[in-house]
Amino acid sequence: MSKHSVLFFPDNVAVQVETGTSLLRAASLAGIELKSTCGGKGTCGRCVLKVKEGKVSVGGGNISAKLKTAGYVLACQTRVEGHAVVEVPRDSRLDEHQVLLDNKPVGLLAEKQVEELAGYEFQPLCRKIYLELDKPTLTENASDLSRLQAELRKYTDCRDLEISLDNLRKLPDILREGDWKVTVTLTSLNGCAEVLHLEPGRSTKKSYGLAVDIGTTTVVVNLVDLETGQIVDKRGTYNRQSRYGDDVISRIIYAGEENGLEELQQAVIGTINHLVDKLLAKNEIKAEDVHVAVTAGNTTMAHLFLGIPPKYIRLEPYIPVTSSFPPVKAKELGIAINPEAWILSFPAVASYVGGDIVSGVLVNGMAESDELTLFIDIGTNGEMVLGNRDWLISCACSAGPAFEGGGITYGMRAMTGAIERVEIDPRSYEVQVATIGNVKPMGICGSGLIDCLAKLLRVGIIDRTGQFQKDINTPRLRETEDGKEFVLVWGKDTECGKDIVLTEGDIKNLIRSKGAVFAGIQSLLKTVQMDVAQIDKIIIAGGFGNYLNIEDAIQIGLLPDVDRSKYEFMGNTSIKGAKLALISQPAYRQAEELGRKMTYLELSVGTMFMDEFVSACFLPHTDLSLFPSATKQS
Amino acid sequence: MSKHSVLFFPDNVAVQVETGTSLLRAASLAGIELKSTCGGKGTCGRCVLKVKEGKVSVGGGNISAKLKTAGYVLACQTRVEGHAVVEVPRDSRLDEHQVLLDNKPVGLLAEKQVEELAGYEFQPLCRKIYLELDKPTLTENASDLSRLQAELRKYTDCRDLEISLDNLRKLPDILREGDWKVTVTLTSLNGCAEVLHLEPGRSTKKSYGLAVDIGTTTVVVNLVDLETGQIVDKRGTYNRQSRYGDDVISRIIYAGEENGLEELQQAVIGTINHLVDKLLAKNEIKAEDVHVAVTAGNTTMAHLFLGIPPKYIRLEPYIPVTSSFPPVKAKELGIAINPEAWILSFPAVASYVGGDIVSGVLVNGMAESDELTLFIDIGTNGEMVLGNRDWLISCACSAGPAFEGGGITYGMRAMTGAIERVEIDPRSYEVQVATIGNVKPMGICGSGLIDCLAKLLRVGIIDRTGQFQKDINTPRLRETEDGKEFVLVWGKDTECGKDIVLTEGDIKNLIRSKGAVFAGIQSLLKTVQMDVAQIDKIIIAGGFGNYLNIEDAIQIGLLPDVDRSKYEFMGNTSIKGAKLALISQPAYRQAEELGRKMTYLELSVGTMFMDEFVSACFLPHTDLSLFPSATKQS
Repeated sequence: MSKHSVLFFPDNVAVQVETGTSLLRAASLAGIELKSTCGGKGTCGRCVLKVKEGKVSVGGGNISAKLKTAGYVLACQTRVEGHAVVEVPRDSRLDEHQVLLDNKPVGLLAEKQVEELAGYEFQPLCRKIYLELDKPTLTENASDLSRLQAELRKYTDCRDLEISLDNLRKLPDILREGDWKVTVTLTSLNGCAEVLHLEPGRSTKKSYGLAVDIGTTTVVVNLVDLETGQIVDKRGTYNRQSRYGDDVISRIIYAGEENGLEELQQAVIGTINHLVDKLLAKNEIKAEDVHVAVTAGNTTMAHLFLGIPPKYIRLEPYIPVTSSFPPVKAKELGIAINPEAWILSFPAVASYVGGDIVSGVLVNGMAESDELTLFIDIGTNGEMVLGNRDWLISCACSAGPAFEGGGITYGMRAMTGAIERVEIDPRSYEVQVATIGNVKPMGICGSGLIDCLAKLLRVGIIDRTGQFQKDINTPRLRETEDGKEFVLVWGKDTECGKDIVLTEGDIKNLIRSKGAVFAGIQSLLKTVQMDVAQIDKIIIAGGFGNYLNIEDAIQIGLLPDVDRSKYEFMGNTSIKGAKLALISQPAYRQAEELGRKMTYLELSVGTMFMDEFVSACFLPHTDLSLFPSATKQS
Repeated sequence: MSKHSVLFFPDNVAVQVETGTSLLRAASLAGIELKSTCGGKGTCGRCVLKVKEGKVSVGGGNISAKLKTAGYVLACQTRVEGHAVVEVPRDSRLDEHQVLLDNKPVGLLAEKQVEELAGYEFQPLCRKIYLELDKPTLTENASDLSRLQAELRKYTDCRDLEISLDNLRKLPDILREGDWKVTVTLTSLNGCAEVLHLEPGRSTKKSYGLAVDIGTTTVVVNLVDLETGQIVDKRGTYNRQSRYGDDVISRIIYAGEENGLEELQQAVIGTINHLVDKLLAKNEIKAEDVHVAVTAGNTTMAHLFLGIPPKYIRLEPYIPVTSSFPPVKAKELGIAINPEAWILSFPAVASYVGGDIVSGVLVNGMAESDELTLFIDIGTNGEMVLGNRDWLISCACSAGPAFEGGGITYGMRAMTGAIERVEIDPRSYEVQVATIGNVKPMGICGSGLIDCLAKLLRVGIIDRTGQFQKDINTPRLRETEDGKEFVLVWGKDTECGKDIVLTEGDIKNLIRSKGAVFAGIQSLLKTVQMDVAQIDKIIIAGGFGNYLNIEDAIQIGLLPDVDRSKYEFMGNTSIKGAKLALISQPAYRQAEELGRKMTYLELSVGTMFMDEFVSACFLPHTDLSLFPSATKQS
C-alpha cells in the first residue's frame, strides 16, 4: 500500500501513513492528542480539523453544516488518500494543562486537606541505606551477597532479602569501587525486601516514587520524594485510551478486537510515561532514581494497564480475572523509570469497585473510624462504600458519565473554561455563570451541571420530572428539531462562538445519573437495614473541580438530605491513597487487607436497585419525605 | 571486511566468515564442536583439521611435522583469508556420545546405585493438579484467580500462591474453555507456590523436569517424569565453554574480556539447549511440558551460567559474588523449555566448593548419617567434605585436571577408546591395556592413569619420586628431546596411529595431582584433630569411567590406606543430587540448608596444606606409616 505524508499545523509535524488511515490515527502518530470521546465513531463531534490541502475522503458524523462549509471535518471520519496538510484548532486538542490537579478550598464545600499520613507510620516502600561492610579476608570469606545481606539485616526485619540477577551481576564491582562502602536502595513489600539499586560509597542522590491515578478519563502522577514523603511535583493529562472510547465498556469491547488489548495497554503506559518524562525533566531527576510506583484505578483500568483481558467484566455475572494484582517490574511493563522498580496496583473489590475506591477508603480513614461513614466517588460510574472499622460494604451504579461531562451536549470535565457555577434570575431568567479560570465558557462540568439543574428547578423552568415548562417567557428557552433547550450562555460570550445550551435530553441524562447514585446509596442502606439518619459522615470524592455545591446536590436528589456538616469533600482520593501507600508500608498492607475485607453488593441481583432507581428519577425524589429540606425550599 | 565461505567436510556445512576468523571459530559457527582444551592458544594440539582447498594463513602451535606435511593444521592457529574447503577428522571432534553417563558395575569398586529418594519424601518441585471449580454467579462472584486459589489451597500448604502475569492473562479463557475444569501445573519453592501452566479440562499431558550437571568439562542432562520421579532419558556432551579454556581459571580470565562473560554464558546455555532439544525430540515431548530445572555445578560454572561475573573467585581472598543463587525463569536465561519454568541452581559453599559438591552431599546421605564420612569428588579440582549429621567441613585443592585427562600428553576423559586398565609384566615389561568400549586405544583416562602409575611403581620402572629407573631393559622406555617416556601402546595398535606414551612430565603432573588430593584429606582431618582411622566411610565421586581401582589409588597414595570395605564409589553425584532435588521438595530445602551449614576450610591460609602437599608428593607418601599396606606390598 502506498504511504502519504500528512503535515499538521501549527505543530509543523509530519507523519507517513498508509492510504485509508484516519486523520485521528495520523494525529495520534504525530503525537497530537485530539479530543474524542466516542472512540472514533463520529458521534461525539469533537475531533474537528481543517484540511488545508491534499486528498482525503470525508465521511459524515456529528458535524454542523456551518463547520463543514468552512472546510472542517471530523478527524475520525476522514481518511487519507494522498499527501495532506491539516490544521488542528486549539479547541480540538486534549490539553494536559487543563486537567485540574488541586482542588483549592473555594466555594461551599471546599476540599478537605488530608493529613499526609492519615495516621499511618512513615515507612516508604523504598529507601536508601548507607552501609560500611567489613572487607573480606581469607578467613572471613563470605560471598559478596552474604556480606551485604548480613549488614542489611540490621535495617530490616523482612524474612527474605532478595536481589535481582541484574543487581547481583553489578554487586562485586560496586562493592570494590566503593571500598566496601555502599548505598543500597531497598524496597520492602509484604515481608520481603529487595535490593533494588546499588551505588558505590555514600550516595547523595535521592530516591523517588510515583503515585499514579489511572482514571478512565484522566491520568494523574505525583512525583514523591521518598526520604521526606513530600510531593515534589504533580501532573495530569488525558488517558490516551480515550480515543478508543469514553467509558470502560467501550474500552472492554475494544480490548476484544485484534491487538486491541495491547493497544489499550500501550496507550495508558504511553500516557504515564509522557507525564513521568515531563515531571523528571522539569525537576532534573533521572529515571533510574525513581524506584517504585503505586497505581490506583478502577478494575478495568487495572486489567488494561497490566494487559489482562477485561472481557468478562462486562458479561454477566461480571467476573474480573483478578481483584489482586501482582507486583510487576517497570521493565516488564515498559514504564520509563528504574527498570527494577516494582509497579504496584491497588487491589480491587469486584469488577465495578476497583483499586481507586480501595485507595479512597484507605486515605479517607473510614476503615479506622467508629463513625458510620458513607464514601461516594462520583465519576463515570458512581461507586460507594458504607461502613466503619468493623465492616465495609460497597457497590457501583452505572451513573453514566454525565457528571464528568459525558453524554451532555456541552458537557466537559472540570478544566479551564468549564462552567462550574450557575445563577438564574427567578424573574428575568437571565443567567450568570462562573468558569474555572475565569475565562470564556467552553462547556459545563459536573458541579456546573448540578448547579444548573438545581437552579432550573428552583426558578421553575423545569418541573420535578425534568421537563421544560410552558409559559416561560425568555428567548433562552427555545424549540429545536431535537426538542427544547435552554441557552446558558449566548455564542457571543463563549470560547467557541456557539450558544452553550442544556437540552431536554441532557437533563434526562443528568436525572438518570443522579438517580442511579441515590439508588445506590439507598440500596446499600437497605441491605444493612439502616437509614440515612444513622450516617455520621458522608465523604464525597470525584473530579468536580474546585468545589461541589452540596446544597444544590441535595436539592436535585443526588445526595441524601442530612445535616450539611456531615459532608466532606476530598477531591481525587485515588491519587491520595496511592501516595499514602507509597510512603507507608503499613498503609500499603492495609490496602491489601481492605481489598479482601470489603463486601461487594451486586446491584443487578434482584429488583431492589431498579425499584430505588425508578423512585429516584424525579427531582429530588418520588418520596419527598426523604428530602425534607429540599421540599421546604421548593 | 570481506566475507568468505568455509565448507566443512564430511558434514557438508558451509558458513560465511570474515577475513581473519580462525577455523576453530568457523567450525563452531558451523555447529561443529572441535576438541580444544587450551582455549585456542595452540598448545593442546587437538583441533586438527585438513585444509583441502582455499586460502588460509597457517600459524604454528603444537602440531607434529608429520601431520603438517600431510596437510593438517591446528584450527585455532589457522585464519581464513578466502573461500576454503576443510575436512574434519573424526578424532578432532567432540562427540557427545562419547560422554559416559552410566557407571555400570564392572571392576573392583563398582558404582554404588543410590536409592531414588535417598530417604526423602517424593514431592516433586512441580506437579499437575486437576480442579473442578464452581461456576461464578452474580452472588458468588469472586474473581477467576480467587476462585482458582481457593480450590488450589486444598492441595498445598504454601502461604503464598502466585501466578505470573502471562498466566494471569490466559486464565479467564482457559477456565471458560474447560467449563471451569482446569489442570494446573504448580511449582512449589520455599513455601511459595506458583501456577506455572494452565490447561483447560483434565490434561493427559505429563509434567517433566530437568536435572542438569554443569561440569567444567561436560554437561549432563537427565529428563525426569515428575509424576513418577523416573528418569525418562539422559544425555551428556562437552561444555561448549571448553573452547575458551580447559579449567575454571582460564574461563574466569576469559569472562573478564569484552563480551567474554556473555559468550561463556551463551556457550553453556547453548550446550544445555542442544541436549534438551535432542532429548525432547527423541522422546517426543514438547518444550512447554518441561516445567522446572535444577542445575548443579561448581561455583564458577554457576556464576557463568547466570551471567554473574566470576572475576573475584580467582583473586585472593577468593570471594564469590554469591553462594546462593536466585531462582530464574527459563525465559530470562533463554533455556528452551516452558518460558515460565523456574531454573534453580544448587547453592555453593565457597568459591571452590560449589553446588556440585552440595548436590553430592545431599545424595550421598552423609549429612543424615551418624557415621563419620569422607566424601571426595575428583575432577578438575579435588573437592572433599568430612563430617556427619552434626557437622560438615569442606575444602578444595587444586588437583589439576590430570585425572580428567588434562595436562597429560595422551590424557583424555573417560569415554570410548580411553585406556582404563593397565597391566605390566614385571619381567618383560610388556603392557596389556583395556579400553572403554573395547576399541583401539585413543588415550588414557583417570582410572587408567592411576592404574598405570601404580603398575609402573610396582614393577620398578619408576621409583618413589616418580623418576624412570635406569637399567630397565625394554624398548618401551625411551629417551626423547623432552625427556624419558614409556610407551603404553605402540602406534600400530592405536586409533590415531601414534604411540601412546606416558612421559616423565605426565608422571610429575599425576603425582602433584594425587599429592594435592591427599594433602587436602590430611588438612581436613588435622583441622578437626582426627585421623584416617576414625573415618567410617569414604565415598568417591568423579568421572572415572566404569570403575575406580581403589587398590591402585591407595598404592600411589591418592586415597587413604584404610579398610577397602569402607570405600564406596558413586560416580557423578552432582547430577544425582540435582535429580533428587527435582523430585523432592524436602531434599531441595535440605540442599539450601547444606549450603549454609557446611564449613569451608581455606587451604591457602597458613602453611598446613603446603606442608602436607610436599610430604604427599612421593609414591605413596614420605611418611610410609600412613600407608602400611602399600609399604607391605612394594
